Formats: sequence, structure tokens, C-alpha cells
Amino acid sequence: MALDKNIAVLLGGVGGAKLASGLIEALPPERLTFIVNTGDDFWHLGLKICPDLDTLMYTLAGLVNPDRGWGVIDDTTAALDSLARHYQVEPWFRLGDKDLATHLLRTHWLRQGRSLTEVTTCLAGRLSLRAAILPMCDAEVPTMVDTLERGELGFQEYFVKYAWAPVIRAIRHQNCESARLPQPVREALEDADIVLIAPSNPWLSLAPILAIPGLRDLLQRAAAPVVAVTPIIAGEAVKGPTAKIMRELGLEVCAREVASFYGDILDGFVDDRRNEPFAIQGLRTIQLNTLMKDQRDKVALARATLDWIGSWAL
Amino acid sequence: MALDKNIAVLLGGVGGAKLASGLIEALPPERLTFIVNTGDDFWHLGLKICPDLDTLMYTLAGLVNPDRGWGVIDDTTAALDSLARHYQVEPWFRLGDKDLATHLLRTHWLRQGRSLTEVTTCLAGRLSLRAAILPMCDAEVPTMVDTLERGELGFQEYFVKYAWAPVIRAIRHQNCESARLPQPVREALEDADIVLIAPSNPWLSLAPILAIPGLRDLLQRAAAPVVAVTPIIAGEAVKGPTAKIMRELGLEVCAREVASFYGDILDGFVDDRRNEPFAIQGLRTIQLNTLMKDQRDKVALARATLDWIGSWAL
Repeated sequence: MALDKNIAVLLGGVGGAKLASGLIEALPPERLTFIVNTGDDFWHLGLKICPDLDTLMYTLAGLVNPDRGWGVIDDTTAALDSLARHYQVEPWFRLGDKDLATHLLRTHWLRQGRSLTEVTTCLAGRLSLRAAILPMCDAEVPTMVDTLERGELGFQEYFVKYAWAPVIRAIRHQNCESARLPQPVREALEDADIVLIAPSNPWLSLAPILAIPGLRDLLQRAAAPVVAVTPIIAGEAVKGPTAKIMRELGLEVCAREVASFYGDILDGFVDDRRNEPFAIQGLRTIQLNTLMKDQRDKVALARATLDWIGSWAL
Repeated sequence: MALDKNIAVLLGGVGGAKLASGLIEALPPERLTFIVNTGDDFWHLGLKICPDLDTLMYTLAGLVNPDRGWGVIDDTTAALDSLARHYQVEPWFRLGDKDLATHLLRTHWLRQGRSLTEVTTCLAGRLSLRAAILPMCDAEVPTMVDTLERGELGFQEYFVKYAWAPVIRAIRHQNCESARLPQPVREALEDADIVLIAPSNPWLSLAPILAIPGLRDLLQRAAAPVVAVTPIIAGEAVKGPTAKIMRELGLEVCAREVASFYGDILDGFVDDRRNEPFAIQGLRTIQLNTLMKDQRDKVALARATLDWIGSWAL
């Protein structure tokens, strides 16, 4: 496995952070750039919340709640309990007290006029993270989910408030046509020797990234191989609504559909060894254990993926 | 004591809140309007902090930390500890987690374009307070303290960061000339049967209120008697820098100097029975126990003050 390669990773939340924590152990962190979905971001109680950025930062800093895969370990909820008890504000989105530190500092810096890219770099720096963490864009590009039961919902309403129960009819990336690809994201993709697409939800976490104007083109033109890891194992998602959404969109719940969704940007696809093999012309595939139950699994998947791509002799 | 009188109280933080908690027990709360110093207010970590408003609200809601007289009882500091530990942000102004609920909600509502008056009324309403709590104005009128050792400081820098150690040369109420007296404050003063000036720091807590254009005139023209309670007992302040500031301003530390500072707006002055009696022409005085060590003292002082004013047969 080549340790001198630059790797760019497109990812969403918990599933992506798992692969990230494998990569960070498999490679010098300085070689890694994470390009993170911000379609889930929203304002809540006057604070800017970036769930996927936070999950990745907390994971890489060793601060993540290991049971949930998001939020801060051993966190308390005194502030939110007080809002509920004394002010009758019952936030449907729970924020821990330690977690609030991140949102306060981010919001404070954003209000000073700094970009989300800058702010994220500062936060990651304070957490002593050596990998680059980049939001997919600086503009607000909220993912809107059109549902059968409740019409169009903001992402967090759909995901948290209604616990992804409503049936999805369509997904829209609001304002994405006017979003600009940040220069550091462009450079990371241009400088990458390998681009990985993490096993995050393709429709909710990766599609927003791919919708940023210019990003898809950049991947298509890139000399670097672009390789996705399946989020579907044996007809189900490891976590979250990926399989449910595929059914709602009329798709078969299988890795092939995921590969087809990414389409011609893909050069390779890491499938799970439990899945039925499939072939798509021009697409290299391999079957590995993609179920990351512990840190060993994560590192093993990261290494095997990079070894496999390294063997292509491009 | 007339329970059907409207009482307006001008006050600052802890000392004022003590008298307030006596008044609230002595009278129907609906009769009381508290007009609160906001010269101490400041922005901290992107949050609007209003120390005197908070101290009064927490006191009247029974939430105040009884040892300090400010902040919320049994509060924790997980958010701020996390800021220090993970982000190397060491705030010199401590905010508890429960306390954060107030600052978050206030800041959120202010950012929506509501005035501080509106926001304060909403917060007090959520806390089920029946007395009216009004900021002295909606504009930001920060108290600036010119010090011998460190030049001009913002109030909280002087008070908290440097623990009121620097020697004061002058006090300035920034922007006060352009501040407008809010309509509810004007009405409360016009409708008041009695105006009380709480035993807060005259120079730091009351002077900012009296500096709002029109307020002093309103008190001078008012038919209602205006009565101050001494913050000086036996040559010392009960708490805080009042006596120290008087010495620094070249004043004798005595109740007479306080009465002279308020000047011709005063009709009466509640002195402490430990003090040397003094006389100022046209000023009624009484000596009472003004040291409020417990709730009984607070209610007794409130009742005795109102009874005394009631006996004037105006």
C-alpha cells in the first residue's frame, strides 16, 4: 500500500466516519482530505449545526460517543433540559453540553464573517486533527426531502424529528445551483491520487456533494481513480435509511443500484463479500468485508481497499 | 401599606435583586415594574449576556445560586470546560450550562429582530414571573470604565476579568446620548405611585439608567415620590466595589454622598440605622435595617420602606 498517495474522501456522517477512522490509522493523516456533506446542516436555537462535520471531527479526535457513533462521549444535557424545564422550549434536536462548545464556537466565528471552510479548519486544528476536513461548500445548501405523508421537510425534520419514517418521493438540494466549489476542495480533488466515496447514504449524504456545480465534472476528468464502498450489505443498510429509501425510490436494494447511481464517475467499487456479485462494464469490483464492527475492521477495510486500488498499476 | 400602589424600581444586579425579592413578597407582583441596568450587557462567544436582567429573573424565579446571588443554582460548566479542554478557549467570563439556556434563547430571539424589551418580557413570561421586568433601553449602551492601570475597559473586563482591582478615573456610558427610553419604561414611570432606587452601585448600576435621555426629567417631573435605599452601611458596601469607587472618585464613603449623587430627583432616602444621620434640605430620611441577610430582612425592609412612604400623606 502506497503511503505517499494523496487520498480524498467524499463522505457523510456515521458510516463515512467509520471508514475515515480506518484510513487515519492506515495512512499518514496529512495525506487525507475529507470532503464532507453539509446538506444536513441547519440553524437551531440560533446555532449553526453541521452534523456530518461534527461526527467526523469527534470521531477523528477520539471524542465521539461510541454507542451512537455521533455526539460527544459522556455528554450531559443540562442546557437543553433547562430550556425545556424553565422556558418550555422542547427542542426535537438534542444537543449535549459538551457538543454545544463546538456549535457556540462555530457560530461565533461564522458570525464574524469567516467561511465555513475556514471555521472548520480552525475547529479541526484546535482538536489537533492532522487530516484536512473540508465542507463540500460554504453556501447553505439544505437537503429538502419531499415526503408522501408530510410534504417537503428539512433534512433534520425528516431524519430526527420524524425518525425517517415518512416515505420519500423526491430529494432536492436547495440553492445547490448557485453554490461554488471551494478552492481547497477543488485542489484536494485535483491533487488526489485516489478519490474514495465512503459507505454513506448515496441519496442523502453523497448526492448533495455530487450536486455542487463542477464537482462531478472534476471527478470525471480526474486522472485519479474514483472508488466507492458499498453501503448495502446483504440487502440491508448497516445503519440508517439507505435501504428504506431505495425501496421508496423503486430501486432494488443491492450494491449494483448504488454503483449505477454513482454512474460514470466510478472507476472501482468495493462490494461486500456477502453480496451477490455483479458486473458493470468498465467498472472494477472487489468483494471485501465492508461491515465495520470495530476498529480492526475499519483499518482492514481501509488497507484492503487501498491495496486493491494500488494493484491496478495505473 | 397600600397594596394598590404601582411601584417602579430602578436597579442593578445582586443588591437590587435582594430588595426586589423582598418587594415581591410584600406586594402583589403585578404592581411591580423593575427597570434594570443594561450597561453591563455584552456579547460573549456570540451570545448576548445581560447580567443584571439575569440576576433579577433568576432571583424572582427562585433559580438563583444562593451562595453567589447570581447564576443558576446547582449549575454545571460542561460546555465551557469543553471549550477550554478541546478548543483552547478559556473564557474569563464563566457561563453555566443551565445559564446557557437563557443566553441561547435570548440571543436567538434577538437575532430574529425582536427588541431586548420584548425578549425580556418573553423570558420572564416563560419563567412565570408576574412582575414586569424591563431593560432600561433597547440600544446597546455599554458602560466603559477608564482605569489608572489599564486605560478604558469594558464593564465586564473591569468587573470580572480584573476583579474590579484597577483604580477608576472615570465612567462613560457609551452611545447613551442616542438611546431612547422605551415606551414601557416611560409608562411604568408615569404610572408609578412610588419610584424606588435599589441599593445597587450608584455609579456602576444606577448611573447608566439615569443617563438614558429623558429618564431623569421624568423622575424630576413625576408626582410620585422617588426614594433611594442606601448601598453604604457603616462606611462600607455590603458587596462589590461601591465603597472602593467612592474613595477613588475622591468621595467620602457615606450615605450622604450617595444621596447627593442622586441629587434633586430624590424625595426620600432610606438610610441604614448603623450610619451617622445626615440632613439634606428637602430630603426626607429614615433609618432602617438595610442589611438584607435573609428573606425576612428583605421583606421587612421592603415593607418598612413602603409604610414610611405611605405615611407621607401626599
